Amino acid sequence: MAITGRSDKAEGKIKYGMVGGGEGAFIGAVHRLAARMDDHYELVAGALSSSPEKATRSAKALGIAADRSYGDYEAMAAAEKARKDGIEAVAIVTPNHVHVPAARAFIKSGIHVICDKPLSTNLKDAIALEKLVKASGLVFCLTHNYTGYPMVRHARQMVADGDLGELRIVQVEYPQDWLTEPIEKTGQKQAAWRTDPKLSGGGAIGDIGTHAHNLAGFVSGLDLDSVLSDVDTFVKGRKVDDNVNVLLRYKGGAKGMLWASQVAVGNENNVKLRVYGTKGGLEWHQEHPNHLHWFPYGQPPQLLTRGSPAANAAAGRVTRVPPGHPEGYLEGFANIYTEAAAAIRAARSKKKPDKAVIFPTITDGVKGMAFIEAVLKSSAKGGKWVKLTA
Amino acid sequence: MAITGRSDKAEGKIKYGMVGGGEGAFIGAVHRLAARMDDHYELVAGALSSSPEKATRSAKALGIAADRSYGDYEAMAAAEKARKDGIEAVAIVTPNHVHVPAARAFIKSGIHVICDKPLSTNLKDAIALEKLVKASGLVFCLTHNYTGYPMVRHARQMVADGDLGELRIVQVEYPQDWLTEPIEKTGQKQAAWRTDPKLSGGGAIGDIGTHAHNLAGFVSGLDLDSVLSDVDTFVKGRKVDDNVNVLLRYKGGAKGMLWASQVAVGNENNVKLRVYGTKGGLEWHQEHPNHLHWFPYGQPPQLLTRGSPAANAAAGRVTRVPPGHPEGYLEGFANIYTEAAAAIRAARSKKKPDKAVIFPTITDGVKGMAFIEAVLKSSAKGGKWVKLTA
Amino acid sequence: MAITGRSDKAEGKIKYGMVGGGEGAFIGAVHRLAARMDDHYELVAGALSSSPEKATRSAKALGIAADRSYGDYEAMAAAEKARKDGIEAVAIVTPNHVHVPAARAFIKSGIHVICDKPLSTNLKDAIALEKLVKASGLVFCLTHNYTGYPMVRHARQMVADGDLGELRIVQVEYPQDWLTEPIEKTGQKQAAWRTDPKLSGGGAIGDIGTHAHNLAGFVSGLDLDSVLSDVDTFVKGRKVDDNVNVLLRYKGGAKGMLWASQVAVGNENNVKLRVYGTKGGLEWHQEHPNHLHWFPYGQPPQLLTRGSPAANAAAGRVTRVPPGHPEGYLEGFANIYTEAAAAIRAARSKKKPDKAVIFPTITDGVKGMAFIEAVLKSSAKGGKWVKLTA
Amino acid sequence: MAITGRSDKAEGKIKYGMVGGGEGAFIGAVHRLAARMDDHYELVAGALSSSPEKATRSAKALGIAADRSYGDYEAMAAAEKARKDGIEAVAIVTPNHVHVPAARAFIKSGIHVICDKPLSTNLKDAIALEKLVKASGLVFCLTHNYTGYPMVRHARQMVADGDLGELRIVQVEYPQDWLTEPIEKTGQKQAAWRTDPKLSGGGAIGDIGTHAHNLAGFVSGLDLDSVLSDVDTFVKGRKVDDNVNVLLRYKGGAKGMLWASQVAVGNENNVKLRVYGTKGGLEWHQEHPNHLHWFPYGQPPQLLTRGSPAANAAAGRVTRVPPGHPEGYLEGFANIYTEAAAAIRAARSKKKPDKAVIFPTITDGVKGMAFIEAVLKSSAKGGKWVKLTA
Repeated sequence: MAITGRSDKAEGKIKYGMVGGGEGAFIGAVHRLAARMDDHYELVAGALSSSPEKATRSAKALGIAADRSYGDYEAMAAAEKARKDGIEAVAIVTPNHVHVPAARAFIKSGIHVICDKPLSTNLKDAIALEKLVKASGLVFCLTHNYTGYPMVRHARQMVADGDLGELRIVQVEYPQDWLTEPIEKTGQKQAAWRTDPKLSGGGAIGDIGTHAHNLAGFVSGLDLDSVLSDVDTFVKGRKVDDNVNVLLRYKGGAKGMLWASQVAVGNENNVKLRVYGTKGGLEWHQEHPNHLHWFPYGQPPQLLTRGSPAANAAAGRVTRVPPGHPEGYLEGFANIYTEAAAAIRAARSKKKPDKAVIFPTITDGVKGMAFIEAVLKSSAKGGKWVKLTA
Repeated sequence: MAITGRSDKAEGKIKYGMVGGGEGAFIGAVHRLAARMDDHYELVAGALSSSPEKATRSAKALGIAADRSYGDYEAMAAAEKARKDGIEAVAIVTPNHVHVPAARAFIKSGIHVICDKPLSTNLKDAIALEKLVKASGLVFCLTHNYTGYPMVRHARQMVADGDLGELRIVQVEYPQDWLTEPIEKTGQKQAAWRTDPKLSGGGAIGDIGTHAHNLAGFVSGLDLDSVLSDVDTFVKGRKVDDNVNVLLRYKGGAKGMLWASQVAVGNENNVKLRVYGTKGGLEWHQEHPNHLHWFPYGQPPQLLTRGSPAANAAAGRVTRVPPGHPEGYLEGFANIYTEAAAAIRAARSKKKPDKAVIFPTITDGVKGMAFIEAVLKSSAKGGKWVKLTA
Repeated sequence: MAITGRSDKAEGKIKYGMVGGGEGAFIGAVHRLAARMDDHYELVAGALSSSPEKATRSAKALGIAADRSYGDYEAMAAAEKARKDGIEAVAIVTPNHVHVPAARAFIKSGIHVICDKPLSTNLKDAIALEKLVKASGLVFCLTHNYTGYPMVRHARQMVADGDLGELRIVQVEYPQDWLTEPIEKTGQKQAAWRTDPKLSGGGAIGDIGTHAHNLAGFVSGLDLDSVLSDVDTFVKGRKVDDNVNVLLRYKGGAKGMLWASQVAVGNENNVKLRVYGTKGGLEWHQEHPNHLHWFPYGQPPQLLTRGSPAANAAAGRVTRVPPGHPEGYLEGFANIYTEAAAAIRAARSKKKPDKAVIFPTITDGVKGMAFIEAVLKSSAKGGKWVKLTA
Repeated sequence: MAITGRSDKAEGKIKYGMVGGGEGAFIGAVHRLAARMDDHYELVAGALSSSPEKATRSAKALGIAADRSYGDYEAMAAAEKARKDGIEAVAIVTPNHVHVPAARAFIKSGIHVICDKPLSTNLKDAIALEKLVKASGLVFCLTHNYTGYPMVRHARQMVADGDLGELRIVQVEYPQDWLTEPIEKTGQKQAAWRTDPKLSGGGAIGDIGTHAHNLAGFVSGLDLDSVLSDVDTFVKGRKVDDNVNVLLRYKGGAKGMLWASQVAVGNENNVKLRVYGTKGGLEWHQEHPNHLHWFPYGQPPQLLTRGSPAANAAAGRVTRVPPGHPEGYLEGFANIYTEAAAAIRAARSKKKPDKAVIFPTITDGVKGMAFIEAVLKSSAKGGKWVKLTA
């Protein structure tokens, strides 16, 4: 019963800046807390808001020195690059349309990037950024945070170890209900930008569908071959999709379905993943993330719990507290930051991080955008199988 | 806290016969128990097996007089029609390919029919039988037994009462795992006929997919417009489908997905239905049938329990015991028989049964066959939207 | 996937009568349905109500011949004894104070007895009846129906097989909420007699506490050594207890707690049993009776389901339908009747029933009354350990 | 959907030191993470281990300057008091027997104390410390961390608002299984000191029983009048209790039971609280802490979820992320630290903290010790009702 796999301050902290995340933002505060949890990061710079007053106020509240609070990400990238004590990494937590240009600016300045998802508002931009990132050799971490949950890691390892046999079926879903009514018209800030196609690049498919897609791929280890979808906007006047039904065909023959909805009344963040193979099945619910249901064929179902003797090494290295004391969303998110920290530190000495270090990369971001484009295309064609191009 | 809605022997019992259901059969015993539960029926005749020895032995074990144990359904229909004390109803519990010819024989003999599902092995036969049944004025009850669960009735009534507002989404699934391996090759009788397309007319789609389709329609009150499917046979050498993914489009604009599988390891009879509208959502699991989860928009989820003050009249009239004392599969199945009994008794005096009496009819059977055909056609075409023709 | 352990009509049916269970009664209808489920019994006589009109009307509704509807149990016992086709068994489903005198009348007439619980309103009467029953050699079955659930049988067998090691802890509870308010003052019939100490002999302790006590003993195989209790009546003016907290000491050293309440808001029939030994633990909930949670020490928890390959023979022989199709309260109750039928049939040929046949007996009834007396005595003394005398 | 009630750096951080928590310790790392989560604290000093080498190594790993790593708490208290930039608060995370002497040293030095539970190894010491703390005017926070969970706060507010009516019943339990076998003999450090009565002052009763006692009192708002217990040591050779059954009598008439066990196989940290009143009931499970089950009398059960519109203000102010993204043990623990920070900051300006600020105090610690003493005394007397003296 000890906290495992964590050293509070193994080396000097990673000084980082943030783009977005000022007053009224949601995900920025989550990123800051995730960065702080294992004490690997220190926030020292920011371009926190496009409104100068908000940016200044937010920076002060967060203890950022006045001369490192910037009006925009370009100024920030340039100035921080020029400083001897400039930031080593940046967290980009803006609406989606800013992800690529901001990331480009920092990559060009030699600064590692941790970026919220989805990667961009279109596939083309994503692919272009991927080239730039790969050429740079810098760390690029995309915060598909559900991959940070210990029992998701456990599940992935079980599949990789062959415990499920050959995979046949993947069922994944991410229903919410917060957009059941047109609250974007009421001025709710989160709803407003997420339903504006220029800022978000899509609705449920991008906001949560990509999480579901990424999670299924992460655990199953499978790549999508093609999708066939039925995309809807149930709320009148809404400019983006709010319910997406998708048939999935994976390379190698597994089949599946994906459902993402923001109008399914009674669902908060009800991510559920089920994977079935010839020898067993797995089921995981994000709202009870410390439990993994394991169904070995012909034997009684087992409940695998985080921190218990049954949890494997892949789960154990991202586990903080003993079984029965639940970890949650923030711990999972923090695991992504801590994994990225390992990669950033390895980069200091031009090394690759240890093999056990796992976090979603630019390539996952490109795959996510390819998924979005294929889903929207399939539905636009009236329901055709569309191959993924990445 | 009293048993409601049941009178043990309101009138004379309905004398019935059975086709199929002899030694080694499964569903026949369920039908007999369901018929017996509320004491409305008495089994007096049978063509229990195509093997004369089995038929005789089975009849004796069930207390059927020797002269009313028949070698086949045609002899039975003819002889029972000729008797003064002939059967008033017949239960057909054979493999699917016998449903239609047997039903035809009894309908032509003026005998009410209670028939297992699916109705037939093809749509054409189903439609022909529907015409015959309608012309006869006889009762035809198809045992889509999940519609007999009290909280399914409750859910249906809530939708009908508008509690969910306008429906948007239907998610229904029926995963099992008993055909994960090719047990039909081991001589397992249930597996053998259910995977023989001549006897069953299809695999998972017919055996359990039609249950899911029927349940979703029963609760939502919606008719399917069209389907788009991806049908698989994962077990090598199997002659029928064992995993079916379907996109659903309902008349009026609701969308949905249906999953039926017999190779999803860890699932027993894991029927789950979720329906979402503009004002609320409902969730029901067959394996915990006494509970209905109700999600009124913007308010806390409620747990509605069978027999409790919260249960509506539609649930109450098919409820036997107080809340917290679970009812199960057999009680739900018995409700179908008891509803059919009400219809048969009304028919004695040329009346229609009370409006509250509900059971699946020949028309539901035709819809089910139309569903099967559309699903198989869609997949055969490589994934096209196919309209339902019934 | 077949119904196991059931033959519909192995031999001639057992003709039985009923004392109590007329119009407005609750448990009588449950007994009739339980008797009917496996087709071993036929109801042919009754003393269904102390009101002659009700008795007559009820008998007619149940198809009992007019000359076998009796005004009281003594007349019934005498007349049925005298008939050549007299009843072979009687079901006593009256308020508690009638159990012993009615049972005595039928035992003296050579008629087997199936009796509702608790056995009596005091220990002395129970012991006297036990002597009479033992001397008679007749079958006496007490309907502690929870012992009829398949997974309760499974649990009992696991303990007996040593799977849990040496038992240390028993936690059992039976909370309800239906007496949260003084509904006995509103004329509610069930509440009225159950809260009248002359008719019931006690409140929660007798009505549900004895069920909890019996269930814990049945599964654990342990006998109580002594109890220490705190008995309350929370509802003003109520004449019997409605909440009982008890410390348990079992022979051999296991310890436990028992809670029975009829004022715990939100509980329907929330029976829960937990048993822990040196090698494992078990947990069972009556409201989800098809599941048994098994905790082998140092290994992941397992979910054992009725009808599955994991279910042992003790569960299998009282199982009707395959896993995932839930059985409930009535099936469990019916198992008691079917077990009693096996004993009655064995008695026809002066044999003992097969060892696998299990049902609660007069001795369990005496133990239950000893438990009630000890609990009430302990609390009356202000909280002392009181040894059980039976 | 925004993080509420958190400002990252409202004022200057609270510089704190730590006693205990060096290499191999468990709870120290939890305290540090809890302190860090909302960025109110900075660790700058420590007496982390009684072993000088461990203390030095641990301090270095945690970034504590060499001159502020002390050999013992007395040296630390003296030196920090003398520094201009000395610590404002100290976290005491040692085995129990050090709590009181260490706290005394810091209180005497004018330093606020955050101390792990239970407060001491005997009631007398606890009372003496309480006097000292009260006279000092300093903040003393005892980390009964379960009171930091948002839905526990919600439950407490509901009770205080009268939603449950008059309370009748409290059922609380804290089963674990990690001491099922005598692992203290294997050198497992946590097991070793926790089962050494000199270091811990007691077994399950102190380690987890006090958590259960505190939680029940926190939510119910009730004070214990008296207890009656049955205390056991099931593991041979163990020097402290490992299973405790307790009957509870609260002032005002509510009754209850408390169970704490470290040998209940299959339980991790399975804290469960149930409270029932005349108008409703509540149920909360620590292993699923974001859910609170609310049972309004006569109405369907409701599921109240953290972060949802149904969550009250008491829950909302300690909530970080939106509903459906689970918070866990560390967030709850951090809430205690953040509440203490508010009190410490108020103390800077000689003010009382806002009324909404809640954390367990020295008085809760004294009550906990009174509870332990009464429980052990009751059992030692063979089971007598023992009044609590604090």
